[in-house]
Amino acid sequence: MVSFLELVKKRYSVRRYSGRPVAREKIERCLEAARLAPSACNAQPWQFIVVDDPGLKEEVAKTTFSPLVSFNKFSLQAPVLVVAVLEKSNLIAQVGGFLRKKEFNLVDLGIAAAHFSLQAAEEGLGTCILGWFDEKKVREILGIPSGKRAALIITLGYPETGEIPEKKRKPPSVFRFYNRYGKNGELLPG
Amino acid sequence: MVSFLELVKKRYSVRRYSGRPVAREKIERCLEAARLAPSACNAQPWQFIVVDDPGLKEEVAKTTFSPLVSFNKFSLQAPVLVVAVLEKSNLIAQVGGFLRKKEFNLVDLGIAAAHFSLQAAEEGLGTCILGWFDEKKVREILGIPSGKRAALIITLGYPETGEIPEKKRKPPSVFRFYNRYGKNGELLPG
Repeated sequence: MVSFLELVKKRYSVRRYSGRPVAREKIERCLEAARLAPSACNAQPWQFIVVDDPGLKEEVAKTTFSPLVSFNKFSLQAPVLVVAVLEKSNLIAQVGGFLRKKEFNLVDLGIAAAHFSLQAAEEGLGTCILGWFDEKKVREILGIPSGKRAALIITLGYPETGEIPEKKRKPPSVFRFYNRYGKNGELLPG
Repeated sequence: MVSFLELVKKRYSVRRYSGRPVAREKIERCLEAARLAPSACNAQPWQFIVVDDPGLKEEVAKTTFSPLVSFNKFSLQAPVLVVAVLEKSNLIAQVGGFLRKKEFNLVDLGIAAAHFSLQAAEEGLGTCILGWFDEKKVREILGIPSGKRAALIITLGYPETGEIPEKKRKPPSVFRFYNRYGKNGELLPG
C-alpha cells in the first residue's frame, strides 16, 4: 500500500460482487486486523463468525431483507458474510458507559469493523457493513447464545468491477473546526 | 507503509506524550481519513473540533479526570485534543436504529475514530480515544450546540518513546468462528 489515505479512498461499500470465492487465508488477515483493534478498557466486547458455507450463507443473507425493505438484497451475491457478535462490555466500561450515557461497546464494534473493512480493501476485497437484519433469526441460524447480540453483518467478496465510485461527503469546512464549534481555523504550519 | 496490518500493530493507545507540537497539516490528514469514513445511510453524523490552543486545551483536558477517576489525567500532556461531536443520525438511519434497537451513530463514530487514529499512527503520532469526561463542560468550553453531543475525545501528539508495547488480546480461537458460534473451522485454502 502506498499510504493509509489511499487505502481509505480505495475502500467503498461494495454492493455488487463477482462469484469468485475468497480464500480463508485472506479472511484470517481481515480478522486479525479486527482482533488487534482497541476497545474501551481493552474489553474486546466482540466475536466474529465467518459464514462461508453456501447454504448457511444464503440463510443468513435472507435475514437482511424483506419485500418491504429490500436495500440489502445484494447480500445474497456476496460469497461470504461475517457476523459480528457483541458481548456486554466489561464491568468498568459498563459502569463508565452508564454514568456517561454512552454504549462504549458500539463504538468499539465500529472500530473493529473499520479495521476489518480496511484490511479487506488491502486484500482487493469489497465489504459492506449492514446493521439492518433480523437479529433473532441470525442468532438461531448460527447458534449464538441468547446473552449476546448479532450486531452487524459484513458482506465480503471480490467486487464485480474495479471502478471505485467517488465518495460523497460533507466538505471539510462543515466537518472540522478549530478551538471552537463552527470556527474554521487558518492552516498554520505547526 | 509496508502493509495495513503493520500499521494496525504500530497503533497503540498512547498515554505518554513528548512536548513536541503537531503541525496542522498532519492533523488535517487525520481529519481527512475520518471525513472519508463510511456511515449508515451515509449520514456522516459527526464533526470534529481540534483543540490546539494551549489554554483551551488545558481546560478541556481537565474535564477528563477528577480526584476519584484519574486514569485520563495524562490528557494534560497531549499537545492536541480532538473532540468528536455526534449529531443525530439522519431519519432513515434513526428509524432503522430504533426498529433494530441499535444506535448506528455510535458505530459510525467508532469507524471514523479508527480512521483518525490509524492515519495518526502513519504520521508517527500517538492517539488515545477517551469516552470518560464531563460532556456538559466540554460543550460549554467549545460552544457546542445543545442538540449535539461531545461523544469522544481523542488525545493526539508525539509519543514520548518509540517503543511499541505488546498488544494483549484474546486468542483467535475464542475471537472468531466459522459457520457456527463456538466452532473453529479448519483453514482450508479457498
